[in-house]
Amino acid sequence: MLVGHPHSTTSKEDKEYAFEMACSNIRYGPGVTAELGMDVESLGAKNVLVMTDKNIANLPPMTKVVDSLTSRKINFSVFDDVRVEPTNESFEAAISFARAGNYDAFVAVGGGSVMDTCKAANLYAADRDAEFLDYVNAPIGKGKPVTVKLAPLIAVPTTAGTGSETTGVAIFDHIPLSAKTGIAHRALRPLLGLVDPLHTLSMPRTVATYSGFDVLCHALESYTALPYTERQPRPPHPQLRPAYQGSNPISDVWARDALKTISKYFIRSVEDPEDVEARSHMHLASAVAGIGFGNAGVHLCHGLSYAIAGNVKTYKPELYNSSHPLIPHGLSVVITAPAVFQFTAPACPARHKEAAVLLGGKADVKDEDAGLALADVLRTYMQALGIEDGLTALGFGSSDVPRLVEGTLPQHRVTKLAPRQQTHEQLGDILHNSMTVY
Amino acid sequence: MLVGHPHSTTSKEDKEYAFEMACSNIRYGPGVTAELGMDVESLGAKNVLVMTDKNIANLPPMTKVVDSLTSRKINFSVFDDVRVEPTNESFEAAISFARAGNYDAFVAVGGGSVMDTCKAANLYAADRDAEFLDYVNAPIGKGKPVTVKLAPLIAVPTTAGTGSETTGVAIFDHIPLSAKTGIAHRALRPLLGLVDPLHTLSMPRTVATYSGFDVLCHALESYTALPYTERQPRPPHPQLRPAYQGSNPISDVWARDALKTISKYFIRSVEDPEDVEARSHMHLASAVAGIGFGNAGVHLCHGLSYAIAGNVKTYKPELYNSSHPLIPHGLSVVITAPAVFQFTAPACPARHKEAAVLLGGKADVKDEDAGLALADVLRTYMQALGIEDGLTALGFGSSDVPRLVEGTLPQHRVTKLAPRQQTHEQLGDILHNSMTVY
Repeated sequence: MLVGHPHSTTSKEDKEYAFEMACSNIRYGPGVTAELGMDVESLGAKNVLVMTDKNIANLPPMTKVVDSLTSRKINFSVFDDVRVEPTNESFEAAISFARAGNYDAFVAVGGGSVMDTCKAANLYAADRDAEFLDYVNAPIGKGKPVTVKLAPLIAVPTTAGTGSETTGVAIFDHIPLSAKTGIAHRALRPLLGLVDPLHTLSMPRTVATYSGFDVLCHALESYTALPYTERQPRPPHPQLRPAYQGSNPISDVWARDALKTISKYFIRSVEDPEDVEARSHMHLASAVAGIGFGNAGVHLCHGLSYAIAGNVKTYKPELYNSSHPLIPHGLSVVITAPAVFQFTAPACPARHKEAAVLLGGKADVKDEDAGLALADVLRTYMQALGIEDGLTALGFGSSDVPRLVEGTLPQHRVTKLAPRQQTHEQLGDILHNSMTVY
Repeated sequence: MLVGHPHSTTSKEDKEYAFEMACSNIRYGPGVTAELGMDVESLGAKNVLVMTDKNIANLPPMTKVVDSLTSRKINFSVFDDVRVEPTNESFEAAISFARAGNYDAFVAVGGGSVMDTCKAANLYAADRDAEFLDYVNAPIGKGKPVTVKLAPLIAVPTTAGTGSETTGVAIFDHIPLSAKTGIAHRALRPLLGLVDPLHTLSMPRTVATYSGFDVLCHALESYTALPYTERQPRPPHPQLRPAYQGSNPISDVWARDALKTISKYFIRSVEDPEDVEARSHMHLASAVAGIGFGNAGVHLCHGLSYAIAGNVKTYKPELYNSSHPLIPHGLSVVITAPAVFQFTAPACPARHKEAAVLLGGKADVKDEDAGLALADVLRTYMQALGIEDGLTALGFGSSDVPRLVEGTLPQHRVTKLAPRQQTHEQLGDILHNSMTVY
């Protein structure tokens, strides 16, 4: 068990000894979107940019947002051209739109793609002279810290999902390198997330499935992340402590709570879109897991997913109404999860066993079978919810593995948080082992 | 079970339907106080007021604070005249001191008394023209909302304890009315809490005991508080949603986590002051429970405690080194806890049973015995740790009950959060039933 972090922190080594507690600014409640106009009014905002995508634009969440702003006579524009699984080009289109107006507040209505695009638009509208790559994570971009003051952003998530409403991260596909990367700084975090579970009733089955697996992987990866006491080096100044700090007693609380909720409600929430109770709990679990991973970090499933999604060939998911090939984020994340946790389990078998039990697995498992036990539980969920049978079903073959490994290597920010460090060959093995899942 | 809040929130009644998630700004780690000077430097502060009490002034926590500030060449003054269980007079002395300087940051080194005094000094130094009662909770004071900008306050808690580092509340004894009251506004919350478990090694046994029972009651009261979906009326504006919102799925997570830690480490942490692991876990549990109750609220144990402590006669606790009679906060809180939870259990027996089990009680208890089961578990802890045998042992008799009830009635802010509302007679019964505990 790694739970006893506080005990292990008196070592003399140059390891981390402190962590910042997760912090959130989330309001939860069915119908809570009705308060949006009052919140915007309290901010003193006079000219608001509402961002969404073409699917959400005609759905109830957007109607509620518009009604609430209109009822308080707030002036707003709508940008509904967010791309699902955004790219540097779609980010730049949103940035141009935002720069052309003089907006003093932003509202994002949608899933992770919309919230992330809105964060980027807010940042570059606040720093009108910045080049796009200035703030993008190194080594792809310059990784400049954010010192300009952003306008307030209120996020209204419509999936149970990314937890992007709780984080300062914006992820996109960098087309020139076929790689996902992002912009990460706490200044990007929404001022307020309105978590209104009624919005998730609009989610198609595949969206509920893939976004739910994203929540599941957020919780599992943050729970099995390198303990904060093992992170090296200890930062010379508290301001240099990274946002992703490794697992700690507080992120553990969030992760375990999310796993319990998933065990009880995930499958129900997909099977019956009218199951308000199940969808409500999953919507809250999405924010809960978001706070957890925003504090502890994620690791290999996410690190690999960026290369997988960035190298999509012709795959198009059902019910996504997309004009371009795309692998939804949650699908690209979960597809390697059974192989990832079989690889990481030897580093902390107790945590892998505990996670498997929280998800409904057996309790009496030997340490050496911990990875297999968790992988088996994951396969049960994946099969029950109709997840494609591995990377092969997403259009990849063995010959793609070297390119996927290359795409994963730059994702240090997350891969180094795995409890077990990886060679290129080991990353390749995980991908080979993910060609078929069942 | 009340866990299914999200399901019950679609009612048409004028009940609350939303809650704000708990938020914290805590950094945890053994030795983390060494970073204080760098944090103060990052704030750009040039003239710092460090507050503490005469006991802490010569103990290691204060040495570490002074060393850290000195190492960064930061100019600071020390006020070490904080009164344990502060009063309006001791608050006013601290305020005068703060107003006489021109401080641009505050550091509080101590337990709840020090942190609360420092919050008040910061507030009234920022609003130099305010009368003392302006910001004090109504009906004793005018309950004015805080609109002035406070200086940053960094809290370094030395007990495992009040959780005051996580809250915007400052409690004191209002001598003219023999009643505890306070100042409550989120603007008072410390910018940063440095939770350094090494400091708790300085706690005398009785301080560890009483402050630990405060943590226990924070967790139990917030876990059994009125659910947020039952709070009436629904606020007409989100800014009018109170800080104490009633129990909700997120405060529940914090409360349960604190109860589990208490069950595992509380008694160990008192028995052996050198048990770093146990004291570390209790120190973190104090902040965890603080975030939970700062979000959900506390109810009857705290409501009654203000009258009990405010009417102290001659009681002086061991090892407190106090010149005046005082009932330590945690003692005044826990002394009625067995009677309180026997009273509240019929409103939500499942939660009372679950709390008892988390604290180590039996699982197979009937609903009608839920209150007794929890009371019995509490008595086990109280007896093991040598808590005085009821109000009688603290110097009270039956004839004091009417005065204690009168002192409790103005504490609406907390008593209305009990899951079962109380008549004057019922409050009197709880006090009578607390005359002896075992």
